[in-house]
Amino acid sequence: MTTTDRLLLGPGPSNPYPEAVAALGRPMLGHMDPEFILVMDQTMERLRAVFRTENELTLPISGTGSAGMETCFVNLLEPGDTAIVGANGVFGDRMCEVARRCGAEVVRIEEEWGRALDPQRLLDAQRAHPDARLVAVVHAETSTGVENDVAPLRALQGTDTLFVLDTVTSLAGIPVEIDGWGVDAAYSGTQKCLGVPPGLSPVTFSPRAVERIQSRDTSAQSWYLDLGLIASYVSGSSRVYHHTAPISMVFSLHAALGAILDEGLDAVWRRHAAVGLHLHEALPRLGFSLLAEEGHRLPELTTAWLPEGADDAALRKALLNDYGIEVGGGLGQFAGKAWRIGLMGHSARERSVVTLLGALNDLL
Amino acid sequence: MTTTDRLLLGPGPSNPYPEAVAALGRPMLGHMDPEFILVMDQTMERLRAVFRTENELTLPISGTGSAGMETCFVNLLEPGDTAIVGANGVFGDRMCEVARRCGAEVVRIEEEWGRALDPQRLLDAQRAHPDARLVAVVHAETSTGVENDVAPLRALQGTDTLFVLDTVTSLAGIPVEIDGWGVDAAYSGTQKCLGVPPGLSPVTFSPRAVERIQSRDTSAQSWYLDLGLIASYVSGSSRVYHHTAPISMVFSLHAALGAILDEGLDAVWRRHAAVGLHLHEALPRLGFSLLAEEGHRLPELTTAWLPEGADDAALRKALLNDYGIEVGGGLGQFAGKAWRIGLMGHSARERSVVTLLGALNDLL
Repeated sequence: MTTTDRLLLGPGPSNPYPEAVAALGRPMLGHMDPEFILVMDQTMERLRAVFRTENELTLPISGTGSAGMETCFVNLLEPGDTAIVGANGVFGDRMCEVARRCGAEVVRIEEEWGRALDPQRLLDAQRAHPDARLVAVVHAETSTGVENDVAPLRALQGTDTLFVLDTVTSLAGIPVEIDGWGVDAAYSGTQKCLGVPPGLSPVTFSPRAVERIQSRDTSAQSWYLDLGLIASYVSGSSRVYHHTAPISMVFSLHAALGAILDEGLDAVWRRHAAVGLHLHEALPRLGFSLLAEEGHRLPELTTAWLPEGADDAALRKALLNDYGIEVGGGLGQFAGKAWRIGLMGHSARERSVVTLLGALNDLL
Repeated sequence: MTTTDRLLLGPGPSNPYPEAVAALGRPMLGHMDPEFILVMDQTMERLRAVFRTENELTLPISGTGSAGMETCFVNLLEPGDTAIVGANGVFGDRMCEVARRCGAEVVRIEEEWGRALDPQRLLDAQRAHPDARLVAVVHAETSTGVENDVAPLRALQGTDTLFVLDTVTSLAGIPVEIDGWGVDAAYSGTQKCLGVPPGLSPVTFSPRAVERIQSRDTSAQSWYLDLGLIASYVSGSSRVYHHTAPISMVFSLHAALGAILDEGLDAVWRRHAAVGLHLHEALPRLGFSLLAEEGHRLPELTTAWLPEGADDAALRKALLNDYGIEVGGGLGQFAGKAWRIGLMGHSARERSVVTLLGALNDLL
């Protein structure tokens, strides 16, 4: 069967960087082959550069972004622990649910969808629950297009509570400063701003998060995502077999990270900022109104209310079938009323913006 | 960096089918795109053909084979359940550990490594524990090269105990009859006889396994692997978003399954049987002795004791560096003393056998 070559401007996957696509076809290597170990080591080093961290335990988990989320919670939480979670969208809600399944008591700090969480409320919650094992928050909410202000959570470094950050839609799109912000554990996904097909979840853990993992009373409830076991494969000289790494996907991630670092992380951030601004300025002229709170609008993921009288399904169908352009529909309470337009990774180009605006101009 | 083009004759990954490699580079599609949904539907249909089942819940899990194992246990077990597990190698041991982490009481039925489990012992254990939720066994033990005789476990259909089968190294290599043998849940991996890069784990669940999942008292401890949620994405008309499927890997699996079904499953099994027999006959002439019990030797994975005085590490290093051929070392108690030679998927060719024998002839 043949499939169509789309311009992917939804909430992810984005169109992968050409280097990432080419690398998928590299000759297969065994997961214990010294040449593959070297590719894995370089991938981990490149991930550290993109996460802006010195954390040794920085690696791609063999699953998509949600597997990375689960990796953080199953390794850092034990039954009965308290977890404070910021919830202002689908992915904050998902964190609450994953933490609950780890047996944690979840303290939800809610905010209206489309508005940013006040970091002071998370810090206050920690003060009210000083024994909380972690505070978790989504940096870039893919369901609402909101950037949560997370740098102030650095204050958690003065407590015994770990700071867990979802960077699925922010990493390699907008500034992420793992060490600078005092983040103890973070996860991402490859199919957004990293410009790689979906299938891997880069994660990073600070030394104090590693210490917490090593001092657990119980084993992690997941064997597949047990970082104590995975760490023995990705580091040291013995490289103990745990599970077979997704070789081709690691090749692809390795190549995309190379392309990103060659362009320069600052330049990549500027490119995302510029195309996002272009879109934010142009959409109101077509009758859309921006959904996310001003000052917290993500350039890489724009949410916008549809123009008065526009038919969501018909319009997205025409974009897809007549122009080969995918944009995302609204999730949850925004379904049918708002769109999510992604400009991520290799899709974050001026060409993408003018193509979308041209098609919308025709259709509206 | 450049890497080498290897002939992969270890325990997996194998060299992928050319169709599987080509499909990795297909233009990316969104996971909710009607064209991708069609690819997913066809992939599920093709998996049913290869698993020899009518099971509706047959799909690729977004992780490697061990994620498929965990999917079976986290969905079918609840804390306090009894699980009977056959253990005659690394992967039987792994099943025990995964079941334990689900809070199950594990009844281990052990057999010496290199020998096959007597299925009657598993049935007797079920008779002694009639409330056991499942009996789990590995069909093809990748650590020992042994095929366990699992067809008699069909008798479990007359009980309330489910039959769980690991087909990681058997599916699309030797006959697997999910419906014919009354298997309730099975998982596999793409990087062995399916001839796809590592990264997906095909699974299949019988109607009575689905019923068991639907009547759970507690939610599955894993959100990522929760089949109740995943099923809403892969079936029905609404296709509820759960997590982003690994699109390129699904393209690759779809293509390899097409190649396998075009060749014909019977022909694929015969090809694996013939090359395995060729290797089994030739190795003793080079001083190796076959490890696995006669009558239970897998054609797709041969274990053999090294010739007297041969240096495991030096020999494998020479094979890899001078000839570009990977074979696997022994696991656990076999480390340093035995090899694991895979002839799987696209690597299961007469050409692979003569290449390996030629190189060994030079080296020994």
